[in-house]
Amino acid sequence: MSQRRRGARAGAPSTIGIVGGGQLGRMMALAGYPLGLDFLFLDRSGDTPAAQVATSLVGEFTDPAMLAELARRSGVISFDWENISVPALRKATRGSAVRVSPPLRALAAAQDRLSEKRLFDRLRIPTTHYAAVNSRAALHRALRDIGLPGVLKTRRMGYDGKGQAVIRTAADADAAWQAMGAVPLLYEGFIPFDYEVSCIAARGRDGELAFYPLSRNVHHAGILRVTAAPWHDVALERAARRHLRALLTALDYVGVLAVEFFVRGGRLVANEMAPRVHNSGHWTIEGAATSQFENHVRAVAGLPLGATTPRGHAGMVNLIGAVPEKSPLLALPDVHLHDYGKEPRPGRKVGHVTVVCASSKERDQQLHRLLKSLYPELSGLL
Amino acid sequence: MSQRRRGARAGAPSTIGIVGGGQLGRMMALAGYPLGLDFLFLDRSGDTPAAQVATSLVGEFTDPAMLAELARRSGVISFDWENISVPALRKATRGSAVRVSPPLRALAAAQDRLSEKRLFDRLRIPTTHYAAVNSRAALHRALRDIGLPGVLKTRRMGYDGKGQAVIRTAADADAAWQAMGAVPLLYEGFIPFDYEVSCIAARGRDGELAFYPLSRNVHHAGILRVTAAPWHDVALERAARRHLRALLTALDYVGVLAVEFFVRGGRLVANEMAPRVHNSGHWTIEGAATSQFENHVRAVAGLPLGATTPRGHAGMVNLIGAVPEKSPLLALPDVHLHDYGKEPRPGRKVGHVTVVCASSKERDQQLHRLLKSLYPELSGLL
Repeated sequence: MSQRRRGARAGAPSTIGIVGGGQLGRMMALAGYPLGLDFLFLDRSGDTPAAQVATSLVGEFTDPAMLAELARRSGVISFDWENISVPALRKATRGSAVRVSPPLRALAAAQDRLSEKRLFDRLRIPTTHYAAVNSRAALHRALRDIGLPGVLKTRRMGYDGKGQAVIRTAADADAAWQAMGAVPLLYEGFIPFDYEVSCIAARGRDGELAFYPLSRNVHHAGILRVTAAPWHDVALERAARRHLRALLTALDYVGVLAVEFFVRGGRLVANEMAPRVHNSGHWTIEGAATSQFENHVRAVAGLPLGATTPRGHAGMVNLIGAVPEKSPLLALPDVHLHDYGKEPRPGRKVGHVTVVCASSKERDQQLHRLLKSLYPELSGLL
Repeated sequence: MSQRRRGARAGAPSTIGIVGGGQLGRMMALAGYPLGLDFLFLDRSGDTPAAQVATSLVGEFTDPAMLAELARRSGVISFDWENISVPALRKATRGSAVRVSPPLRALAAAQDRLSEKRLFDRLRIPTTHYAAVNSRAALHRALRDIGLPGVLKTRRMGYDGKGQAVIRTAADADAAWQAMGAVPLLYEGFIPFDYEVSCIAARGRDGELAFYPLSRNVHHAGILRVTAAPWHDVALERAARRHLRALLTALDYVGVLAVEFFVRGGRLVANEMAPRVHNSGHWTIEGAATSQFENHVRAVAGLPLGATTPRGHAGMVNLIGAVPEKSPLLALPDVHLHDYGKEPRPGRKVGHVTVVCASSKERDQQLHRLLKSLYPELSGLL
């Protein structure tokens, strides 16, 4: 009895190698298959969301042999999260015909909060006040210059609120230094923002640009919980697109880029950027003519970008910890489920649901109804 | 260096086993993954469209060991084409907990054009005049009773115009008998129809029904080339839904069912039914709130059905023979590509493109433009 999966063709230009096999990679593959693209993943585990739908190499992200194998079998390499080794990837692809998209310079900038802030500054993108913190003395200087409250963050390897401490008092600062001081840090002044938005854009290999409408995002305990899009604010959208255009051009970017902004008094303050598809763009699967996942793979494969026009009014709720019972969820009108195939674990993003409605009012009602049934503790957030 | 794909969990209720690994199966898997469903295919080739995106068993459709393996590892068995062995599938699943959806009685009825016609008659669904033909004498009786022109068809194993001969003269009839007479046949009177439509519906395990809007279809040389949907005709749609409801109920059906109709003088004449997702429903991927593929897997997995509401006005063009160069195609506005990952071959369905527009007028313009660039010889058909 024979059993097989054809899998990615060796070195085929249509094969996209992806470092990281999480839900973002999985959704890239599901968006790319209809375009006739193949996918090959590399992840430390063989039981990732992506490995359930595509061929996957199992090994460390920094393993030179594994990265070389990925490069050999792919036409282009992309990634589905940013905490991977730039030097290892650079070394594995040097002298090879394989492209890396988005470019490694974008990955490097996004990996280090200090480089990221400096890039924002250089491109005149308003951001929070910040200071690099490499010593206890530097921390105290930062507190004095920027003020309290603020957030102390590791410069590298942070995501979903991990590697962050809120500083309200000098005692907080000492405790945070004890806990985090072994690695390079960044202190940022706390922004009492009105709300949060994000802007997602794609840039093709030939420089073609496509912008999605703004999304409004609601975080809780450092994790994105709800997105509503399109978020109509002409002035904010114009400013956000100007900032993303500056970043995409400066980085000679290829693929999808997301920037999260705080909104304060009608103005944008850049929080952080992600050189990849982004959780706040998951609504585009049903809510836009072309999803962020399809546009990312179109861009990295050198294909023209698709229309980003919204289709109706979308709302997205992350499923955290465990996927709820499916039948009642799917019985709700307009609801689309995305189950990432992950084992349940507290605080883990295991899926999301999207509603698409004819009006923003209806969408907000649907979102309220969903939150009330799934996460009543969040009902007040919207 | 280790490489793996997690693949379907043995006997998991969330695994859907599918006999046949063509593009229909592939699109079922791509629609089912976001619902957290797994797929396991059985096909004679290991290089099918479905095997590129899911685990696939390679073996004959009638191989008892292979079917038993599929049954053992699946919660429910479905199929992506109807020319498979009902007795073999019945035997492999008898005494097992695995369900087969759609039910084998629907598969059996659709496999034999005579049973299908008799079912239509029994349910008072208007169809063409027909006669079973098992001898040269029976053929001549049929020609005399039903008249010329007509179509002589094999009762079993026909698809995409294969196994059919148009009979315009007694000489045609003799030639067709020589060529096809070794197997049971059906003679049908030729219908000078105005145009063709199809109706696609889904029925859930609990009897829930969902109907897609009518599609208008254009065939050429026996192969579907273009579909436009929704096709607005209240009276036709009401009649079509009545007929599909009768079929779904009579067969205690679970899954998606398609019926193709001729329209003549404002009335429906049933041509044939397909106990599966259908080419004329591919537009639902982008053009409806829930695609036919998602509703099929929802139904067979025992989940509630999703909304069939159209999103805009969709047009679909089949890609026959080879997928054209992708960049110019994807650069067209509103165009979505579905490449099935097949090797090119004359007459083969290798993909389709869908356009979704805000109005039917715009959709028709887009369809004309697409046909003009892809298949100028078909431009006159619309």
